[in-house]
Amino acid sequence: MPDLSLEGVFPPIPTPFDANGSIAAEGLAGNLKYLGRFALAGYVVLGSNGEAAHLNGGETLSLLEQARMHIPSDRLMIVGTGRNSTKETVNLTFQAADLGADAALVLPPCYYRGLMTREVLVRHFRSVADASQIPVMVYNMPGCTGMDLDAETVLEVAEHPNVIGIKDSGGNVAKLAELRQYADPSFAILAGSAGFFLPALSVGAQGGVFALANIAPQPCIDIFNAYQKDDWAVARSLQLRMVRPNAAVTRKWGVPALKAAMDMLGLYGGAPRLPLFPLADEHRRELVEVFADAGIDLSANRKDNR
Amino acid sequence: MPDLSLEGVFPPIPTPFDANGSIAAEGLAGNLKYLGRFALAGYVVLGSNGEAAHLNGGETLSLLEQARMHIPSDRLMIVGTGRNSTKETVNLTFQAADLGADAALVLPPCYYRGLMTREVLVRHFRSVADASQIPVMVYNMPGCTGMDLDAETVLEVAEHPNVIGIKDSGGNVAKLAELRQYADPSFAILAGSAGFFLPALSVGAQGGVFALANIAPQPCIDIFNAYQKDDWAVARSLQLRMVRPNAAVTRKWGVPALKAAMDMLGLYGGAPRLPLFPLADEHRRELVEVFADAGIDLSANRKDNR
Amino acid sequence: MPDLSLEGVFPPIPTPFDANGSIAAEGLAGNLKYLGRFALAGYVVLGSNGEAAHLNGGETLSLLEQARMHIPSDRLMIVGTGRNSTKETVNLTFQAADLGADAALVLPPCYYRGLMTREVLVRHFRSVADASQIPVMVYNMPGCTGMDLDAETVLEVAEHPNVIGIKDSGGNVAKLAELRQYADPSFAILAGSAGFFLPALSVGAQGGVFALANIAPQPCIDIFNAYQKDDWAVARSLQLRMVRPNAAVTRKWGVPALKAAMDMLGLYGGAPRLPLFPLADEHRRELVEVFADAGIDLSANRKDNR
Amino acid sequence: MPDLSLEGVFPPIPTPFDANGSIAAEGLAGNLKYLGRFALAGYVVLGSNGEAAHLNGGETLSLLEQARMHIPSDRLMIVGTGRNSTKETVNLTFQAADLGADAALVLPPCYYRGLMTREVLVRHFRSVADASQIPVMVYNMPGCTGMDLDAETVLEVAEHPNVIGIKDSGGNVAKLAELRQYADPSFAILAGSAGFFLPALSVGAQGGVFALANIAPQPCIDIFNAYQKDDWAVARSLQLRMVRPNAAVTRKWGVPALKAAMDMLGLYGGAPRLPLFPLADEHRRELVEVFADAGIDLSANRKDNR
Repeated sequence: MPDLSLEGVFPPIPTPFDANGSIAAEGLAGNLKYLGRFALAGYVVLGSNGEAAHLNGGETLSLLEQARMHIPSDRLMIVGTGRNSTKETVNLTFQAADLGADAALVLPPCYYRGLMTREVLVRHFRSVADASQIPVMVYNMPGCTGMDLDAETVLEVAEHPNVIGIKDSGGNVAKLAELRQYADPSFAILAGSAGFFLPALSVGAQGGVFALANIAPQPCIDIFNAYQKDDWAVARSLQLRMVRPNAAVTRKWGVPALKAAMDMLGLYGGAPRLPLFPLADEHRRELVEVFADAGIDLSANRKDNR
Repeated sequence: MPDLSLEGVFPPIPTPFDANGSIAAEGLAGNLKYLGRFALAGYVVLGSNGEAAHLNGGETLSLLEQARMHIPSDRLMIVGTGRNSTKETVNLTFQAADLGADAALVLPPCYYRGLMTREVLVRHFRSVADASQIPVMVYNMPGCTGMDLDAETVLEVAEHPNVIGIKDSGGNVAKLAELRQYADPSFAILAGSAGFFLPALSVGAQGGVFALANIAPQPCIDIFNAYQKDDWAVARSLQLRMVRPNAAVTRKWGVPALKAAMDMLGLYGGAPRLPLFPLADEHRRELVEVFADAGIDLSANRKDNR
Repeated sequence: MPDLSLEGVFPPIPTPFDANGSIAAEGLAGNLKYLGRFALAGYVVLGSNGEAAHLNGGETLSLLEQARMHIPSDRLMIVGTGRNSTKETVNLTFQAADLGADAALVLPPCYYRGLMTREVLVRHFRSVADASQIPVMVYNMPGCTGMDLDAETVLEVAEHPNVIGIKDSGGNVAKLAELRQYADPSFAILAGSAGFFLPALSVGAQGGVFALANIAPQPCIDIFNAYQKDDWAVARSLQLRMVRPNAAVTRKWGVPALKAAMDMLGLYGGAPRLPLFPLADEHRRELVEVFADAGIDLSANRKDNR
Repeated sequence: MPDLSLEGVFPPIPTPFDANGSIAAEGLAGNLKYLGRFALAGYVVLGSNGEAAHLNGGETLSLLEQARMHIPSDRLMIVGTGRNSTKETVNLTFQAADLGADAALVLPPCYYRGLMTREVLVRHFRSVADASQIPVMVYNMPGCTGMDLDAETVLEVAEHPNVIGIKDSGGNVAKLAELRQYADPSFAILAGSAGFFLPALSVGAQGGVFALANIAPQPCIDIFNAYQKDDWAVARSLQLRMVRPNAAVTRKWGVPALKAAMDMLGLYGGAPRLPLFPLADEHRRELVEVFADAGIDLSANRKDNR
């Protein structure tokens, strides 16, 4: 198994849909081409921002195939493969590996949340890691699953040799610090939101996976680089500016806002799938303001990004 | 569209798996034959107890086909068809209708729960109801979705002519009363757990859908009949006895306990799919005791039920 | 110790304040005189509706003294005495007993909620019950404490001979059924909200303590009487009508709405204490409508109630 | 009004009780004398660790008087004065100011949490700040109040000239970053738990108030100093070590563990007030281990600290 470096910034790419609601192959290609200009460590495909929950089986595989085609082999493609059943998770992980995924990002099963004891969760993740030919990452996403994996659960899972890290979107940085202190140094910790990127780095995270990296990749990379160079004043200043733009395209308005911002930037955003609606006009105006306050101009409809 | 009576008791049937983890066709047939002896109003297929979350697309359709084969045409087959995407929900509802479903039971999309405003939810349910050739029921299941649909949302959805009722597992009977007072009298309210069946009936529910009806159908029917005859002392006494057995096969130990109890009764329970595990031995013993306290003997391994 | 019957309806009386923010003695007297015309089982003083949380030590005792003066000795006066410290709870219970309280209603300590294990809670309630010369009732109020006492905790506490019942405002009627089935028949269960009064009665509750009984005592009593006479159609019809008025003066707008409704009825409502504000004008208008829909006229400013 | 610097580390001192349960004056004096050896910025009296919720009115004032006697005038004494009623909060703030408090730390009212809209909370804090002769700090403590003040609420309150900062124990560092970006630079942000001290500093916090500073003041100060000198490797290493000791004396076992650790260090811990119990023996052993893992020896019963 190759040694995967999980250092740096990873955008979790949205899945673009065309006017008929089908996957927009050219939109995807264009977006990945744009992102390819930046020093990103890799990409997450089929994450929460990728509307994995809205795709059927065929679309899931087709998207992976297309994404891999446009992601250079020297950039990691991490693929969300978590399903409620262990078997389906294993199956999708196999398929993802076959289609060129470098690692699998596995959400905890959450439908029967009342029954998801630590023991059940640990056995699930270990079964997936046992079966997978590619390395596995834990994906803690309480905002979507309604379950927050605790440090003890993650540390038990992290002992498995095929588990290489976690994307944690919960924002509990004390937990990230605990993971850093007690997990093997090779276990990678990735901040799951740009809202706490620098705080996570301050306690030993290796990088981050966040929506904002799709539309403001350079500031996100700059935070990482400033931190690497111990230039804390710069890192802090950028981090503080990014909090509201990040909240706008995640907690507040989610994927519809992320896609709206991409459209404004001349990238391919398009409409999310129902039940999500395109961002309302009044929120578009607020979105432009929030980004303007942070020094990012969404109003220009910048064709040069295509 | 035929007028569907949703009065009475509906077991949400578990999906039986064989030793290889495939759907156990004969087990399903036997279980449905057993339930056919009782005065049940119909069945829910692919609900939470049916491990719908653990089945792939092919299994989903195959299960429906088999279930309809064994459910007489004078008994309703209500099918869980909720998915995170409106389109997938519509598609599965179509397929279920083609395979003989009498009504669709639709969970709210919950992955992007932070974005599921009343407006988004109402539009989702209305879109599904618009597209569906069979009547639609709302399925409120906060224990699994982490979202509790409020009265206002349900009342707005209930105005759609193709929405015929709700299964509510949340246990907020004040909300059920509010629905009963303000929804059209034809809108059916079904208690989603045997733990509050009589209280729900007391404020105008028409019936119930609950796991316990798979293993103790007669006491559940007896509660309903006693209530219909205004025999409250009998209804109350039965209701009080059913609370702990109900909790054991739902909130406390879930599907694994339901399947264990079925095995003990000589029905086909079998193992749940991973990540769920078969009920631990110590909990099996507790399960027997809880049911014994309620006057139900699980220890006999009753072959006469087959 | 006298045998206390906890059957029937108990209004938790608000604490009236005058224009200077002091306790309005005459307002209290008038309100109690008005309530005295109805077949109420007794009163709760210093409950959540009594703004116990807003009174200092001296006011607490003064209010009790005045309330007892106006509550006839054949009507129970139940007094809220729960504090975060066991010692302070015991002290206040003593003082309440000295001032004529018939029973103490004890909230669980909740400030250190993360440390309130079943063991800690049981020991707290037992210590208070041991020390108290008057009987003790458990007060489960998750909407204010953020903690929901589970059935096992309450059943352990209920074994104490000086613990005579519970007021449960959580609305989990399956829990009430479990308490009824496993607690001694002498242990009284009182619904803590009019929103689920009939459902609670249907599983064996003895009565209820709820805000609505201050402003609509007769319909509340009528629900109880209809239930006693097995007249379920009448009981249900009244219960359904009461759900929204009840929500308006509790969950939705709380004490400010209760006091506004009292003023409209010609009783003494007055302003709540800050940080609570008098009900806003637009909500007053909605309040009148909600009650009108339920057949209760708040618009007449009925002087005959004084 | 003097300019208060809120930079650095503030221990929230526990209230020591003697064998009779009274305030142990000498224990308090000894503890403060011990803490006086360290470069602490000041002290918080009557915070959550001070069991303010367990004291009566007289004890509250007596404790303040004694604390001020032993806190040198060049060290800040910040006093918890939040009550459920605005009036009582104002009154206690006055008394605290009279007894020498330098600032008041004000919890949001939380009993009527369902009614605590942003508007209500902002008016409450502004009323207190208007009335207070000493500066006011907001105290966000969701673990005890069950309410998490959002950034917008805090930013509105922060505009008041007599509001000088916040102690935030919620751990949402993205919110702290938002406060830092949008509040006036003079508004102080203090981390309310040692678990996220460095992450909070990384986004511009001025210091911290946390239980751990009572028993491990030097490592806490060292984190702050290392951060001030841009020595991130040292700061991180210390921060990672402090996470589990911090959790042990807060979230996990709370005040009982804090007091047990103080006893072990030769300080005056003593028993907490009921309903809290002294730390169980098995947890004492675990506590010693957790601190030993972090390089802090609790086993020596160090008399030299007295």
